[in-house]
Amino acid sequence: MSEAYGPAAEFAGLAKRAAELDLTDPLRSKRTEFVLDDTDPTAANPTAANPTAANPSDADPTGAVSPGPPVVYLDGNSLGALPAAVPSRVADVVAHEWGRLGIRSWTESGWWTAPERIGDRIAPLLGAAPGQVVVGDSTSVNVLKAVVAAVRIAQSGAGAARDEVLVDATTFPTDGYVAESAARLTGCALRAVEPHEIAATAGPRTAAALVNHVDYRTGRLHDLPGTTAALHAVGALAVWDLCHSAGALPVGLDVHGVDLALGCTYKFLNGGPGAPAFLYVRRGLQPRFDSPLPGWNSHADPFAMSAGYHPADGAARGRVGTPDILSMLALEAALEVWDGVAIEAVRVKSLALSDFFLECVAALPGGAALTPLTPLPHAERGSQVALRCADAEAVMGELIARGVVGDFRPPDVLRFGVTPLYTSFSDMYRAAGVLGEVLDDRR
Amino acid sequence: MSEAYGPAAEFAGLAKRAAELDLTDPLRSKRTEFVLDDTDPTAANPTAANPTAANPSDADPTGAVSPGPPVVYLDGNSLGALPAAVPSRVADVVAHEWGRLGIRSWTESGWWTAPERIGDRIAPLLGAAPGQVVVGDSTSVNVLKAVVAAVRIAQSGAGAARDEVLVDATTFPTDGYVAESAARLTGCALRAVEPHEIAATAGPRTAAALVNHVDYRTGRLHDLPGTTAALHAVGALAVWDLCHSAGALPVGLDVHGVDLALGCTYKFLNGGPGAPAFLYVRRGLQPRFDSPLPGWNSHADPFAMSAGYHPADGAARGRVGTPDILSMLALEAALEVWDGVAIEAVRVKSLALSDFFLECVAALPGGAALTPLTPLPHAERGSQVALRCADAEAVMGELIARGVVGDFRPPDVLRFGVTPLYTSFSDMYRAAGVLGEVLDDRR
Repeated sequence: MSEAYGPAAEFAGLAKRAAELDLTDPLRSKRTEFVLDDTDPTAANPTAANPTAANPSDADPTGAVSPGPPVVYLDGNSLGALPAAVPSRVADVVAHEWGRLGIRSWTESGWWTAPERIGDRIAPLLGAAPGQVVVGDSTSVNVLKAVVAAVRIAQSGAGAARDEVLVDATTFPTDGYVAESAARLTGCALRAVEPHEIAATAGPRTAAALVNHVDYRTGRLHDLPGTTAALHAVGALAVWDLCHSAGALPVGLDVHGVDLALGCTYKFLNGGPGAPAFLYVRRGLQPRFDSPLPGWNSHADPFAMSAGYHPADGAARGRVGTPDILSMLALEAALEVWDGVAIEAVRVKSLALSDFFLECVAALPGGAALTPLTPLPHAERGSQVALRCADAEAVMGELIARGVVGDFRPPDVLRFGVTPLYTSFSDMYRAAGVLGEVLDDRR
Repeated sequence: MSEAYGPAAEFAGLAKRAAELDLTDPLRSKRTEFVLDDTDPTAANPTAANPTAANPSDADPTGAVSPGPPVVYLDGNSLGALPAAVPSRVADVVAHEWGRLGIRSWTESGWWTAPERIGDRIAPLLGAAPGQVVVGDSTSVNVLKAVVAAVRIAQSGAGAARDEVLVDATTFPTDGYVAESAARLTGCALRAVEPHEIAATAGPRTAAALVNHVDYRTGRLHDLPGTTAALHAVGALAVWDLCHSAGALPVGLDVHGVDLALGCTYKFLNGGPGAPAFLYVRRGLQPRFDSPLPGWNSHADPFAMSAGYHPADGAARGRVGTPDILSMLALEAALEVWDGVAIEAVRVKSLALSDFFLECVAALPGGAALTPLTPLPHAERGSQVALRCADAEAVMGELIARGVVGDFRPPDVLRFGVTPLYTSFSDMYRAAGVLGEVLDDRR
């Protein structure tokens, strides 16, 4: 169908480039480790053309499936695709480990140690040595742990009283809300600052700053090394939210001396809907990590069931309650796709994919209706392309109905996630082509 | 095999009683809705006789299975058995809802509204009208939400400053640790008090008390109506931990005017390992529920992605971050076993089962070595039998090796959970018999 997309010869010529780039892509075999639709799921459900009204019970009762073109899934920055190893692993956890072994699985099936074990599986992708990452709870809950703990460490140091927490003014909302709560609970004031101004704003009263590594809306990559160093220069702690960079690009937590970090695992790490988040606490700070959520799982000897709280050493200190094993072990299986993958290679392909998509969009006859919000310099770009567009919510609805799945963010942003383990250059070409068709049809 | 258990005629006679009680049990058909082992899993794994050393890789490489007697699973007060509806539902969530629909499942598969929907499914078991229970996070995290919110409500009232939080001195550890944190974060002192003394101890400085409805170790049922009323009489709030009563006995949250409550769903509610916990906030208090974890999921308009936090009305105000969908929807499927079940009928059978087990234990020739820790009066008993015993940890290890799965709690307690939906009187008889054999063999 590629010849149908763009009337302009320039755009059509990009199809050949896409095919060539796919052929020489060193990560191309990874795509087979995911379950990706080869037929359009909207073809089986007449209501899907209007996703906001869709309800499974409204589906065509005949269940007839008309094969459509393959779905292009560009929403891996919101919910990563399903790794092929996950279904059988989850089935085994349910039927055998829970159903047959029952309570014994806490020891015999390794459930108890899963949070640290899976943390260590994620750590290399973040540039972290083992023993510093633990998995569990939601991102929001980990924001509370990290910001409260950071403030407590900063306030315990010598020097002036530190009573201010800085937060990325462009943050995904939950970070702002929970940082406000953390500030309130520790007697601090919260101040919202544009990420590029945090380095210059931090001062002797700053206890900690919570910053997003990549902006969820624009896809802008912030300066983690520089901002961290500036915070340290004034005696403050740096807490980074890696939701949009973990599994997408090198983070270098250890080398840049980041103090605490957290992020979700259901975007570029493909852990599944609501998979548990991760928390990184730099080794040198672990003995001073004083959690606002000292649940029994972070006790030095949890099964002694003692009345006094004595925190565990190491990453386990970031644990709280009983881990959600089904979600957690699905994540562990999902992480197998990273075997043999260097995050640097992912970054190279990610930039090539987003460059190519921007080139395709620029070549669309109707491309002038789209304004890239994602920065063009590589050093400032995460792993998505955000385009401003009139009627963006309706445009995205039509894209999804035609099998190109991105998402909409208020007020006028189309987001297209770039996930190098399973996104191809041909996907990007087709997405741009369908976007062009939608814009044509709306004129 | 029953004739082999007890040499005493008195004990052997109880086998017939067990069979008769099973025949007339109105809940007996519910057992078929669970996956229960009909062969002894330890027979397939020679290392299982020593559970502390067991490791799946050590298993008999021939995989030979010698059929043993059925396993008696009396650990449903720690991890409920697998409901038969769960495996296929989880498989569908993974393969279809995540794998095929992807991000669209947040609306089309009802993922987004699952926390309130599943909360409403649990509510009747707690004696709560709809709209007051929400599912998510761990019990520990919900303890923080509930205690901080309770203190804030109490402190906002007229009268004397309230700067004291009471906690059940016999609590499961996490409640004590997190209550201490909640007190610290709100400028209160924490005071540990025996549950039966909380009513008399609470005074004008008490902001809130956190109490367990049933003691996790002894199985003692505490006085929820009386303690709640006494707290209210002094202007304090009552926060109840229902981990060991939800799904085991009537709670009557609404009728007794409980303010906040929480509990896990993986014990008597059979939600699976680490299934999300629940939080109850009495309707009249919801507008004043001021969460220490105001994540984006509790925002009145979460997808507006606004920088200011405006909490949702109703139970959703207790939400935090993105819900762990796999664990949560497994729980939802698990709750189907409650269709047509009245919690009052569960209570009747629970007491009959624990009475019968205590009778069997008393009739054992070696029964004198066992001291019931669980109160004998029904009004003071939860849904487990705890027995004090010398070398309890080793005894429990041998019981498990012989297919009777309970658990050990320090220092000297054997715990046997009673779960009326799938526990039979014959199970109780067999468990007592094997316990007698183990004690005989150790003499």
